[in-house]
Amino acid sequence: MVTINENYLKLKAGYLFPEIARRVNTFAEANPTAPIIKLGIGDVTEPLPAACRTAMIEAVEEMGDRATFKGYGPEQGYEFLREKIVRHDFQARSCDITADEIFISDGSKCDCGNILDIFGHDNTIAVTDPVYPVYVDTNVMAGHTGPVQADGTYGGLVYLPIAAENNFTAAIPQQKIDLVYLCFPNNPTGATATREHLQQWVDYARTHGSLLLFDAAYEAFITDPDIPHSIYEIPGARDCAIEFRSFSKNAGFTGTRCAFTVLPKNITVTTSDGTEVALHQLWNRRQSTKFNGVSYIVQRGAEAVYSEAGQTQVQELIQFYLENARIIREQLSAAGIQTFGGVNAPYVWVKTPHDLSSWDFFDKLLQVCHVVGTPGSGFGAAGEGYFRISAFNSRENVETAMQRIVAKFTA
Amino acid sequence: MVTINENYLKLKAGYLFPEIARRVNTFAEANPTAPIIKLGIGDVTEPLPAACRTAMIEAVEEMGDRATFKGYGPEQGYEFLREKIVRHDFQARSCDITADEIFISDGSKCDCGNILDIFGHDNTIAVTDPVYPVYVDTNVMAGHTGPVQADGTYGGLVYLPIAAENNFTAAIPQQKIDLVYLCFPNNPTGATATREHLQQWVDYARTHGSLLLFDAAYEAFITDPDIPHSIYEIPGARDCAIEFRSFSKNAGFTGTRCAFTVLPKNITVTTSDGTEVALHQLWNRRQSTKFNGVSYIVQRGAEAVYSEAGQTQVQELIQFYLENARIIREQLSAAGIQTFGGVNAPYVWVKTPHDLSSWDFFDKLLQVCHVVGTPGSGFGAAGEGYFRISAFNSRENVETAMQRIVAKFTA
Repeated sequence: MVTINENYLKLKAGYLFPEIARRVNTFAEANPTAPIIKLGIGDVTEPLPAACRTAMIEAVEEMGDRATFKGYGPEQGYEFLREKIVRHDFQARSCDITADEIFISDGSKCDCGNILDIFGHDNTIAVTDPVYPVYVDTNVMAGHTGPVQADGTYGGLVYLPIAAENNFTAAIPQQKIDLVYLCFPNNPTGATATREHLQQWVDYARTHGSLLLFDAAYEAFITDPDIPHSIYEIPGARDCAIEFRSFSKNAGFTGTRCAFTVLPKNITVTTSDGTEVALHQLWNRRQSTKFNGVSYIVQRGAEAVYSEAGQTQVQELIQFYLENARIIREQLSAAGIQTFGGVNAPYVWVKTPHDLSSWDFFDKLLQVCHVVGTPGSGFGAAGEGYFRISAFNSRENVETAMQRIVAKFTA
Repeated sequence: MVTINENYLKLKAGYLFPEIARRVNTFAEANPTAPIIKLGIGDVTEPLPAACRTAMIEAVEEMGDRATFKGYGPEQGYEFLREKIVRHDFQARSCDITADEIFISDGSKCDCGNILDIFGHDNTIAVTDPVYPVYVDTNVMAGHTGPVQADGTYGGLVYLPIAAENNFTAAIPQQKIDLVYLCFPNNPTGATATREHLQQWVDYARTHGSLLLFDAAYEAFITDPDIPHSIYEIPGARDCAIEFRSFSKNAGFTGTRCAFTVLPKNITVTTSDGTEVALHQLWNRRQSTKFNGVSYIVQRGAEAVYSEAGQTQVQELIQFYLENARIIREQLSAAGIQTFGGVNAPYVWVKTPHDLSSWDFFDKLLQVCHVVGTPGSGFGAAGEGYFRISAFNSRENVETAMQRIVAKFTA
């Protein structure tokens, strides 16, 4: 008899965003004329940069000529893209990263989940609370947790609470943890980490032989020159950190699909028989065997992000969304609602007014204002009483949504 | 201390194709003027169909307008593509498959590997020998095998030999096996399965509660009207088979990346507490959590495969490669070399002459004829003494390669 991976049965009823979609659809069916504005899922809304489109059209045309047709590409990604990434995103910030340490992929979500393939099942694992649900769910699916508990946490994971009290940066743990997920600028809270805070994590990891899984998908939103964009800006990080990056949120590639993972070649792990094995080699084997690279056309589009025109266009997109975030922060404050984040990040983290639960605020915002956000409790038990509002929408929609909230919530 | 997935250490030195690349590069560096022709890896060479290119350029342009911009798409793939697939590939062949049973992905290799995520670790697993290495390697990586043995096989897997003696179709096993990988038209042997043979497998699976993992990536090469293209042409297959399909080899998408998996909703597995769980639900959860869908642009390209122009252009590609296969078969026969396959498949399976080992024939063909093929032993112990030649190349290269072989090998 075929058996299944019963760890899947431990997962809570639904991934957060499908549950939101369900409630929105139910409301929309009952209220077909309600002008719903979605500031929930972190999906971009503005057109793809012209530089990327031009490059992709050229790549499609190359596919039409036998001499320039591209079949299977390198599983790790084309060198033309890896070279550009390294030069602009790392070497320009004095990070000691080389092109053969970059692995191009079709998404950061995929990489964050798939990376677990190369690790043992006996590592201790820490996540912040609240947290991007994929880190938790993929560990549940891999059998690294017990069943879900009454408060929505899973036994076997170490949760590091982040809240207003600690400025949404977790206290460095006392105990030894093997794998630590960090995300800065943070999803969902919009918090950033100082150089000093990241240095503490790197020091912790080097002391304990831990590995930091550093998700920097939102680094493009950092405007403060003192805030690091990459973990590799921190001395020692090459020994203890894997970084996840994406073109989804800087260049609007959520529907185009391109991302990358940085895995320094010098990170080794000792096996049970005492051999040193490089994680780079394992990840390369994983990707070569279970992945076939990203579409050539898309990789050419991603490369164009680093052209002069591409850089200008990406900056315009970032500034546009950051201005949305500013409007959200100011208008919610005007409505007497407390906010966090949204300065060097596209997410505004809201304290729900009147002590409403996260889902009650979700339902109220949907029904009264026809505005969709994301319940903080969907990101973890410590997110209860919070709510995430995304700056990814048109200016008009953001302004309209905020006007509705101000009108209904201002005392 | 961080631990790794030590199952990776059981893997043989290198995945087959990187090892071939290494030997070819070494030869090419030593012989920079040698005009090497590659008939090794199963990678297409001819331009992408015009219909697909036109559709992709339109899709790129849609991305440039806020009104038609596409962000995150459905993880399962766009309905416009799933509907076309179902109508043309399944309902037109009287297969009872619906659009919500199709999961669009970025590759069949990915799906064949990732599907193991949803299964338990205690299933018995059978593969043919020789076999497409990804089925074996992904099971090794998932911990479903013992260490590699002297003959290259892994303990814990059931190997079903296929050879000239059984017409390259495995005998139905006597014992009960939970997961059976089948691939028709076969990679590497180019063999096809009759309706009767597939019916035996479906009957076996239904009797034993087994699941067939049916890889039909090469179905487009079937020209014989009596040979099924899909396992779902066989009565009862909906109860016991998952099918993997690809746009790589019909429409030349190896560098463009699009494939799909068919998972009928009625296939259920009983869990340890007696609950019935649909595999469809598990796979949907896996894909929603660890995957973010295929590029919208690429999905529009794949949709165009089903347009009238697309169908004509794909047929031209298929006929082109099949004619290459015919030339390879005839010329090798003329050189006194025995061949199999290559009729309803793009692969010609060659018995090495003079009892050469697969790798010795590889080296000889490379050094004497400057032609690259794939050693049969790379596909499994029972592939020793065989060699795979791919029909994926230009007519000129195929003809030149065959002339060289005829000149050197004809007694």
